[in-house]
Amino acid sequence: MSAMNSSSSDNQAVKNIVLLGSTGSIGTQTLEVAEALPERLRIMGLAAHSNVELFCEQVAKWKPQVAALFDESAAKRANEILSTCAGTPRVLSGAEGLESVATFADAQLVLGAMLGAAGLRPTISAIRAGKDIAIANKETLVAAGEIVVQEARENNVRLLPVDSEHSAIAQCLLGESTPAVKKLTITASGGPFVETSREELKIAPASAALKHPTWSMGRKISIDSATLMNKTLESIEARWLFDVMMENIEIVVHRQSIVHSFVTFCDNSVKAQLGVPDMRLPIQWALLFPDRVLGAAPALDILKLSTLTFEAPDETRFPALEIGRRAMQIGGVAPAAMNAANEIAVQAYLDGQTNFYGITSCVNWVLERCETIARPSLDEIFHADERARIMAKEYLQKSA
Amino acid sequence: MSAMNSSSSDNQAVKNIVLLGSTGSIGTQTLEVAEALPERLRIMGLAAHSNVELFCEQVAKWKPQVAALFDESAAKRANEILSTCAGTPRVLSGAEGLESVATFADAQLVLGAMLGAAGLRPTISAIRAGKDIAIANKETLVAAGEIVVQEARENNVRLLPVDSEHSAIAQCLLGESTPAVKKLTITASGGPFVETSREELKIAPASAALKHPTWSMGRKISIDSATLMNKTLESIEARWLFDVMMENIEIVVHRQSIVHSFVTFCDNSVKAQLGVPDMRLPIQWALLFPDRVLGAAPALDILKLSTLTFEAPDETRFPALEIGRRAMQIGGVAPAAMNAANEIAVQAYLDGQTNFYGITSCVNWVLERCETIARPSLDEIFHADERARIMAKEYLQKSA
Repeated sequence: MSAMNSSSSDNQAVKNIVLLGSTGSIGTQTLEVAEALPERLRIMGLAAHSNVELFCEQVAKWKPQVAALFDESAAKRANEILSTCAGTPRVLSGAEGLESVATFADAQLVLGAMLGAAGLRPTISAIRAGKDIAIANKETLVAAGEIVVQEARENNVRLLPVDSEHSAIAQCLLGESTPAVKKLTITASGGPFVETSREELKIAPASAALKHPTWSMGRKISIDSATLMNKTLESIEARWLFDVMMENIEIVVHRQSIVHSFVTFCDNSVKAQLGVPDMRLPIQWALLFPDRVLGAAPALDILKLSTLTFEAPDETRFPALEIGRRAMQIGGVAPAAMNAANEIAVQAYLDGQTNFYGITSCVNWVLERCETIARPSLDEIFHADERARIMAKEYLQKSA
Repeated sequence: MSAMNSSSSDNQAVKNIVLLGSTGSIGTQTLEVAEALPERLRIMGLAAHSNVELFCEQVAKWKPQVAALFDESAAKRANEILSTCAGTPRVLSGAEGLESVATFADAQLVLGAMLGAAGLRPTISAIRAGKDIAIANKETLVAAGEIVVQEARENNVRLLPVDSEHSAIAQCLLGESTPAVKKLTITASGGPFVETSREELKIAPASAALKHPTWSMGRKISIDSATLMNKTLESIEARWLFDVMMENIEIVVHRQSIVHSFVTFCDNSVKAQLGVPDMRLPIQWALLFPDRVLGAAPALDILKLSTLTFEAPDETRFPALEIGRRAMQIGGVAPAAMNAANEIAVQAYLDGQTNFYGITSCVNWVLERCETIARPSLDEIFHADERARIMAKEYLQKSA
């Protein structure tokens, strides 16, 4: 079958990586992957928001050539802590600091895992600097997918997904042609509330939502997983990453989180990617693409799979799915506004300031008041994001 | 993701096909695929064993440029029947007749679906004539896999699997490199006897074995599916088609026949291909490779999949799996002898001349008396095949 294999790489050289968002869940797991593969991956740059202690540990251990913390005072403290640590770079700060890390000359690939809209600008800068992008920041594609994909095409860089669902789809698309794709089916574990009734959900506290059955994730993403807003965000990401229309993207609840997504082709053949739920696998795939080597991810024993279940999601209990489709129908800055409002509402829920359905009510309220701008610029997207945050806070105060 | 897609084809031209074994289950389904895609597939040649009536209907309908029946008297009758049918070729006969069809100058691809060892010589001839091969004849690879794969490599032709399991594996391998493969997992429906106890199996008649739960297949293959000998044959085929060692090929019982097989890569990522159980999908995939178009195969509704189950096969009730591994350990002509003995024993079971475990006992007995020949020639393989048939008949007579 040698004629059918096309993406093998004889290049076993080390790849130079920059990691944006090194102190978060994806960031720390990325460093685990790098630690397991020292002969294949070199950490050239690290950046994070404000977690000084962990960031300093990482810089001391990995000794990157460039480092930055977004928060000015955090960067200042980091430089004090690291002043006695030989071989560490000065920690830069602010948007310019992130920019310097994202565009560092010797890096070949930038893994973007900063939370929220903060990840968008450095990602765009990295693309313009010709870096391949391992994309773990949802907002980058949700808010500005059309722009990001176009920039990537123009700069001839790869956008390699890190989300397990998009990694699955990308792996299934290897060696296939894009026009042959009929449908994408994104799997959802169903989250912690898959069995919870609407009445119970109305009063479910954030602490219950944080108990995810199959994936270990950050707090914000865990809440998105409970509302299924994560599946809305992932659908929008997939729409841009794979050039598939929203109406050809569906969600299926698969509680075991073993099948990470499906692609249906126009001949009705379906491919799926599976694995033990462990983010280190898609992270490694994106970092090493097109190579596969044994890394930190554990093996899946197919003989012991036993039972896998699949069911349609309940849109009555989880209105986020409908909201996402509506945001994409409005288009323009609506997905950015939806995402920004969701960030604010999720934080309010985590802080006990709104209830479970307060999240989607808030997002819905903001979306109904969203401007319609065809083909918005990056600045217009940032403006819509800011405006949506203000509106979301207004709504939450009013309804408190 | 355009940089990751490599096998798209702009060649929408019609492909010229020759079909060996047109009157069997795969043959008739291949003609259904061709009928659904007249602008993509042209039937240039037809060959079969001896089913005169159906073959004449096919020749009259498809008007191929070349045709043959292996059986001399059948060919003679076919020529009488077709003498009044304008635009049909003279029906050739014997091994030379098959040869002429298999090597027909204008054909680009030969689909080999003749039953048993009869399919091997014309397949080798077609490879030497530079035709791509869609391979649906198990014996070709089981008996002479090493030779066939080497001939294909030397003649720079593709071997495209038609079996649903191998098609699944080939589809999962698209865009991947062969050294990255860690394990192949071939799915088995479990066959009609998946729930049947060993005591019941001892007296199970062939009529019960012919009731396959999920696939519509020929009689011989249905019995192989009941003994799991089909999975032994498929493992050996996979070993040669995909250059994976037998010890890295496993069987999993998956009763719904929706997942057609799995590939595990060295990074522990797993890919699977799925679909409604319908042979027209893998047939079409092999015929049109690398293109995918909407054809005759129905869509799989993932939202309605509900439950998929996976379990290790019971080697106590189904000794064929162990026999296959032993045949491959012996190597040389042993797999050919195993396959030949199985053909004879299955026929005896269908004719009520032996019982269910008589099949594997017979194969086992022949295998224990098999010559060991390292790197046998095609003639040595044919000789071993003939000798095994005689020995199998001896065994069955003795034990009757």
